[in-house]
Amino acid sequence: MKEFKVIEVKRSILEDNDADAERLRKELKEQQTFLINLMSSPGAGKTTMLKKLISILGDKIKIGVMEADIDSDVDAKAIMEAGARTIQLHTGGMCHLDAAMTRQGIQEFGTSDLDLVILENVGNLVCPAEFDTGACRNVMILSVPEGEDKPLKYPLMFSVCDVVLINKIDVLPYFDFDMEKCKAYIHMRNSKARIIPISAKTGEGFMEWTQWLQEEAAAWTNQI
Amino acid sequence: MKEFKVIEVKRSILEDNDADAERLRKELKEQQTFLINLMSSPGAGKTTMLKKLISILGDKIKIGVMEADIDSDVDAKAIMEAGARTIQLHTGGMCHLDAAMTRQGIQEFGTSDLDLVILENVGNLVCPAEFDTGACRNVMILSVPEGEDKPLKYPLMFSVCDVVLINKIDVLPYFDFDMEKCKAYIHMRNSKARIIPISAKTGEGFMEWTQWLQEEAAAWTNQI
Repeated sequence: MKEFKVIEVKRSILEDNDADAERLRKELKEQQTFLINLMSSPGAGKTTMLKKLISILGDKIKIGVMEADIDSDVDAKAIMEAGARTIQLHTGGMCHLDAAMTRQGIQEFGTSDLDLVILENVGNLVCPAEFDTGACRNVMILSVPEGEDKPLKYPLMFSVCDVVLINKIDVLPYFDFDMEKCKAYIHMRNSKARIIPISAKTGEGFMEWTQWLQEEAAAWTNQI
Repeated sequence: MKEFKVIEVKRSILEDNDADAERLRKELKEQQTFLINLMSSPGAGKTTMLKKLISILGDKIKIGVMEADIDSDVDAKAIMEAGARTIQLHTGGMCHLDAAMTRQGIQEFGTSDLDLVILENVGNLVCPAEFDTGACRNVMILSVPEGEDKPLKYPLMFSVCDVVLINKIDVLPYFDFDMEKCKAYIHMRNSKARIIPISAKTGEGFMEWTQWLQEEAAAWTNQI
């Protein structure tokens, strides 16, 4: 028995996604919804990070997660089990979400009672970076096993992110991953990116990450 | 000083990529070129696998690698250093290659003296699966850190592959990865897929993998 809604989001007929994304951001500001667009490669740990986040912040603030997938619902099930409200967005084969698709998700979900809404985008370092979803902030996860050279190969993704979480630092001893090089490559693409090494498995780094999230959410909704 | 050519491949103006891909496969058959299309997520280990493959097979057969990237050339440099002939294909922001782009690469590269040509597609589990490149066989790499659930979330990728290499098995002890579940999920999508667990770091599994490659190459070029 599913406890979450599944909706098939449709690509915008609007030509100008950027303008539509700006409109959505204004709407979110008016309705006091703080929306994070979370991006990464498949398997970098978006869902595991969210489960840990819900276990840490779930008692303090109301979190909702919109799970975008091509056609499965395994992540939505995992998030529901972790205790957050969730909705599954099916992209019908599309590799990303645009602002219109995100707006459909927000409207179906109903976000007025939520303090933090996270859109888990399709696992992909190319297409999601090309389409502004209209979210208030962009966050991406790069995981240690992927290697430190990813900012060289997927420049746009790193240039559009406010925060880069470097996940799976618990397995650093088993991989040839140069953290300092990685940070330098990220800052080469985006000097303003905040970089936070974390382990979604052990919880390391989550103090800094959850603090950033809470401060940004409060600033967005004018509570500070 | 670059020792490899970099070409900007352009998207086809042809509406029917599938028909064009079939044409390319016929052309490859006529010119006795065995082309593998290699796909995976970013960081699953395509380049590391190729370096190991070149070190094992490089003395026996002539290998060429076409590196597709959005705009970098780090992989082409690594492959050239490993001792194989290489060419860099820039997709100009595109998340995949189509048959026309692949044909441009083949023509610029010149493949008549090569026994095995590998196209390293853009790191992405969505778009590359949607566009038949015209290659003789499709191979994808799923790495242990990505998790065993990926066939559930990226069904098309697994359904179009002849071989799935499960890479990074050297780090199996450090991840919650269920190999039997993974194999079952892959076969759920594609009952004919050959599954070969490998470690591009240690070389484990490469006997089976290189044997498959050599047999398929020989069959394609009518040597057996």
